[in-house]
Amino acid sequence: MSRPPVAVFAIAPWAFHDVFPADLIDRLRQSAEVDATVTFTSFEGEAAARALAGAEFLLTGWGCPRIDAEVLKAAPGLRAIVHAAGSVKAIVDPVVYERGILVSSAAEANAVPVAEYTIAMLVLGAKRVFERAGHYEAGQDAWQQGAGTGLYDCTVGVIGASRVGRHVLRRLRDFEVDILLSDPYVSPAEAAEMRAELVDVDELCRRSDLVTVHAPALAETRHLLDERRLGLLPDQAVVINTARGSLIDTEALTRACASGRVSAVLDVTEPEPLPTGHLLFGLPNVLVTPHVAGAQGRELRRLGEYAITDLEHFMRGRPMRGRVTAEQLARLA
Amino acid sequence: MSRPPVAVFAIAPWAFHDVFPADLIDRLRQSAEVDATVTFTSFEGEAAARALAGAEFLLTGWGCPRIDAEVLKAAPGLRAIVHAAGSVKAIVDPVVYERGILVSSAAEANAVPVAEYTIAMLVLGAKRVFERAGHYEAGQDAWQQGAGTGLYDCTVGVIGASRVGRHVLRRLRDFEVDILLSDPYVSPAEAAEMRAELVDVDELCRRSDLVTVHAPALAETRHLLDERRLGLLPDQAVVINTARGSLIDTEALTRACASGRVSAVLDVTEPEPLPTGHLLFGLPNVLVTPHVAGAQGRELRRLGEYAITDLEHFMRGRPMRGRVTAEQLARLA
Repeated sequence: MSRPPVAVFAIAPWAFHDVFPADLIDRLRQSAEVDATVTFTSFEGEAAARALAGAEFLLTGWGCPRIDAEVLKAAPGLRAIVHAAGSVKAIVDPVVYERGILVSSAAEANAVPVAEYTIAMLVLGAKRVFERAGHYEAGQDAWQQGAGTGLYDCTVGVIGASRVGRHVLRRLRDFEVDILLSDPYVSPAEAAEMRAELVDVDELCRRSDLVTVHAPALAETRHLLDERRLGLLPDQAVVINTARGSLIDTEALTRACASGRVSAVLDVTEPEPLPTGHLLFGLPNVLVTPHVAGAQGRELRRLGEYAITDLEHFMRGRPMRGRVTAEQLARLA
Repeated sequence: MSRPPVAVFAIAPWAFHDVFPADLIDRLRQSAEVDATVTFTSFEGEAAARALAGAEFLLTGWGCPRIDAEVLKAAPGLRAIVHAAGSVKAIVDPVVYERGILVSSAAEANAVPVAEYTIAMLVLGAKRVFERAGHYEAGQDAWQQGAGTGLYDCTVGVIGASRVGRHVLRRLRDFEVDILLSDPYVSPAEAAEMRAELVDVDELCRRSDLVTVHAPALAETRHLLDERRLGLLPDQAVVINTARGSLIDTEALTRACASGRVSAVLDVTEPEPLPTGHLLFGLPNVLVTPHVAGAQGRELRRLGEYAITDLEHFMRGRPMRGRVTAEQLARLA
């Protein structure tokens, strides 16, 4: 009887048991041999060396050290890296592909909660719920402070048909809205399939009641929403950022919000964390949340489940759903 | 050529043009003769008498006076009351049915935004977003203040398979959650069709991570969530109320939230408005919003559209989608 392949965990202890709870470990054991008493956040030292020497799979997550040429040398039998978190950019060195090692990521599973958060904030942002809750608390007549409305009949601008962006676009179909999409890699036909009209970012800003940002953080997307483009937004527009703080010029957005012309829900900022006392915290038309849109708590399990399912796919010779190719890695944010 | 039937508006001026914007009036004119320069908020006086004398339809909304025996006497040709708002309870006297007048309400259209608001708050409440935003603003490490999670793997308890309750149940299918339903008029089989497990309110409270209330406000539902039942909730449970304030014992909920054991999102309260300075406003784990979940702003148009479509159905001899029978009126909250 041949022994099952060995899988090794490399994920921060704080996340380990949330991402891989006991029943998932049990399920994993039907496909691979694992030592669930050990997880590595460094590949230095003797224990790591021993584990890597026998590893055919790395089950990685937040806190996994970068897997580079040196780590690979210590892991001659490694066949796949299965990442139970979002982007593999930080942990996977391109050299991994030279060895023919397959890489999979649970970014798809991590996109779900971000999209859910985004849709929730679009609904409530359109309704000016947070601003009006503040007026209510302050004893002002909340109904006299500008009407809110739900998403009905709004134009929603989605910047970036990224994984999260596509989840958001899919969910927006449940609402009676016009959807604009801006993405340099999407064709008008592909946009139309997603029920969106493809426009450039300037036009998107001019026409959208609400703008939600889902672009990758690259040099060319830095301050994608700058002073000029924020100025194109119609009065009372709402800006939502669950992607990366660098996509928006924080100072310009602060000015636009302070003037009362634009509202914002920001789960990410630049800098992050936002310094205590920052003007954005005090504005009634801005809600700043501490980077919580992604998977957390119970949701971490969804990542582990996704990763283990991909490992099972690999074992059965089926394509991994979250496969990240060398070309994709190069393009990743 | 026979003249088209006459429809008369009885809706508050503040809402009139939002509920029936110009293009909807144009559409209405293809089915009925209307004077869009007049809307009645009282049926006394000569102008009202003249309008009622010729009216075959009343297009009603917020601010419509009660339609009782006296009004009916003045409107001998009245065939249908089409209400472009939620409950007709306050405006339709049962005597209307003795005359064979049909009644329709846009409650179905008004349920949509309430359900959207509820789902948004379930997502964000489960994630403890508001509480953590407060910690963040206060300069505390938001991640150390208790983890949040999205709806994934949660148990959501829905009290009341009302119109809004059913919309919420339908939308919950998009989430990976267990759903409990409590409703005295629903069978276990019907609940199962809605993917919910039918339980009594006590069991629902004991087992739900989040509870959302969609029951009618009746004598027997007053303080449905009282001190005892709030005490059954698991630690860290979230209570959401978008229905009526009387369904929850405000003082008991305030104590439960002040202890930190339970969180809440309240769009309705008892009393309402909640007095400025009420303890609930100051609690980090409570968000109080000023009764904004229902249709507002642009969303009002959805009500007018629904009402006009029902009037068109009536004219073509088709059943009105929002028809309210005498029996239903008697049961309405």
